[in-house]
Amino acid sequence: MIVLNGGSSSGKSGIARCLQSTLPDPWLAVGVDTLIETMPASMQASESGIDFTADGGVSIGAEFRVLEAAWMEGLAAMARAGARIIVDDVFLGGAESQQRWRKALGGLEVLWVGVRCESAVAAGREIARGDRLSGMAVSQAEVVHRDVLYDLEVDTTRAESLECARTIAAQVV
Amino acid sequence: MIVLNGGSSSGKSGIARCLQSTLPDPWLAVGVDTLIETMPASMQASESGIDFTADGGVSIGAEFRVLEAAWMEGLAAMARAGARIIVDDVFLGGAESQQRWRKALGGLEVLWVGVRCESAVAAGREIARGDRLSGMAVSQAEVVHRDVLYDLEVDTTRAESLECARTIAAQVV
Amino acid sequence: MIVLNGGSSSGKSGIARCLQSTLPDPWLAVGVDTLIETMPASMQASESGIDFTADGGVSIGAEFRVLEAAWMEGLAAMARAGARIIVDDVFLGGAESQQRWRKALGGLEVLWVGVRCESAVAAGREIARGDRLSGMAVSQAEVVHRDVLYDLEVDTTRAESLECARTIAAQVV
Amino acid sequence: MIVLNGGSSSGKSGIARCLQSTLPDPWLAVGVDTLIETMPASMQASESGIDFTADGGVSIGAEFRVLEAAWMEGLAAMARAGARIIVDDVFLGGAESQQRWRKALGGLEVLWVGVRCESAVAAGREIARGDRLSGMAVSQAEVVHRDVLYDLEVDTTRAESLECARTIAAQVV
Repeated sequence: MIVLNGGSSSGKSGIARCLQSTLPDPWLAVGVDTLIETMPASMQASESGIDFTADGGVSIGAEFRVLEAAWMEGLAAMARAGARIIVDDVFLGGAESQQRWRKALGGLEVLWVGVRCESAVAAGREIARGDRLSGMAVSQAEVVHRDVLYDLEVDTTRAESLECARTIAAQVV
Repeated sequence: MIVLNGGSSSGKSGIARCLQSTLPDPWLAVGVDTLIETMPASMQASESGIDFTADGGVSIGAEFRVLEAAWMEGLAAMARAGARIIVDDVFLGGAESQQRWRKALGGLEVLWVGVRCESAVAAGREIARGDRLSGMAVSQAEVVHRDVLYDLEVDTTRAESLECARTIAAQVV
Repeated sequence: MIVLNGGSSSGKSGIARCLQSTLPDPWLAVGVDTLIETMPASMQASESGIDFTADGGVSIGAEFRVLEAAWMEGLAAMARAGARIIVDDVFLGGAESQQRWRKALGGLEVLWVGVRCESAVAAGREIARGDRLSGMAVSQAEVVHRDVLYDLEVDTTRAESLECARTIAAQVV
Repeated sequence: MIVLNGGSSSGKSGIARCLQSTLPDPWLAVGVDTLIETMPASMQASESGIDFTADGGVSIGAEFRVLEAAWMEGLAAMARAGARIIVDDVFLGGAESQQRWRKALGGLEVLWVGVRCESAVAAGREIARGDRLSGMAVSQAEVVHRDVLYDLEVDTTRAESLECARTIAAQVV
């Protein structure tokens, strides 16, 4: 399993797609965005679910955590059943988020990858995408990496997604 | 777990969203479309993956089956970890497809729901949606129900998604 | 030119796609949703632009009206240059909105079509779609038809999009 | 009016959104992709419409040209009616495509902007996006600029969309 962690607009999804194209075996690419889409609409903009503030902040409630934990268990089971999986996530809690994944993925081989992007550059890309709340890139750029331990870090500030994917692929046996 | 089975454009996704809105607890809605999106682009239009023919036919290869099996195992694990899940699928193999799900979901309580829609009506809705290959609705309308056993069947030909969802929700304890 | 007017989730876009599929000549389908997407992100959730309230209300500002007027002029010019166009719009101002279109489309042959859907049914379809603000269907269902004059009205409450499209197509010479 | 011309995956849409965010007045952003979406589904994969070949080639038929010409006239009329418009297009015919625009936009002030991106980089971004036919970036990278006259050229190979947008915005009075 490959876990990509980085702030909003750091380029995780692009790297995931390039990894899928680069790696010889078929890998599934899943992300926390997909999890949010599978939740009821009522979980969004809700205290117990996930809430986005006007300045790009994100707050996570108890109900969200319960579903997220089950989702992590499910992905671990998919991997144990033979699926190769690239997960892209935003560790809002830094090391604590990583700890949740470690617990769920116990026993599985995991490549932990930090996806960095300078805050100002990520903010510009957020504008260029036009589909994200303004401010998420800046507010997440640093905090998601706090005390997280990686096997490998890539930086999309000056490197293309495909280059980053090749660097990562070289670590996948 | 609730499994909705029906042909393309029979209205499964709409029913799933109405179920999420109707049921008091939070349910995740996942579907085979999501699985396909998580696969590498190279799995589409490929013999070993999934291939769509010009007349709306779908053929599934060995590699697809391997990933699908792992995905089913993963969803079962999510459910065992406490997540309530609505799956929407297209049983291209009829009873054989159901058998694959039964094996993966062993021990879990499952509500099997058939979602029917008259072929001509589904074909019209396929045109109205504009995002599906023409012909899928007709070619799948009957075959996906072949020898499948249901707890409940709904028919969207004349009933709205929300009505169908309420009928289903009444069976969920 | 064909102008379809109806509330949110009344089924205008589906009818437009069915018309494109039914009519022998190629028709372009455009709508106020497309106009909104072409505007700067800052025009949304803005007093001078367009703003959606939590209960499904929509308020339109002066800046929006200026761009909308230019857009109407542009569509009229496209039609005069030979393009067949199906417009789908939401006449929030009823007869006043129609008056704006009449002014822009002066001299062009227009088929005015009212797309009705019972409020409760449209509200259910809004939930099934899952991509619209809850409440828009109900708040717009009646008001958009106030004092509007039609050549033809269709009702999607019990008729399929394709049937409605065929009824409309029969009026197009 | 600002016309951005560049190959697929050269970054035109991102620059357009950054321009909308950077320029003090509201500008509409439209593109040939929007035109294609407004056409009937039957115009795609059709000899008289637009056809995409497996290697990323694009061929345009007579019917497409007729609608495109009307669309250009319509955009010119929108601009004359006071709308500020950013167009993003792919000049498959190079100077000949520009000539078509010049004819439609006669009398309007236009800023012609070439958006360049090294072929290999654009191809990598095409993979990262995952929503374009593979090969389009490479096959269009050079040909769309053939004999086209620009007021300004930007290159996204090493510059961010927002930087390019600022360079362009500085030329807009």
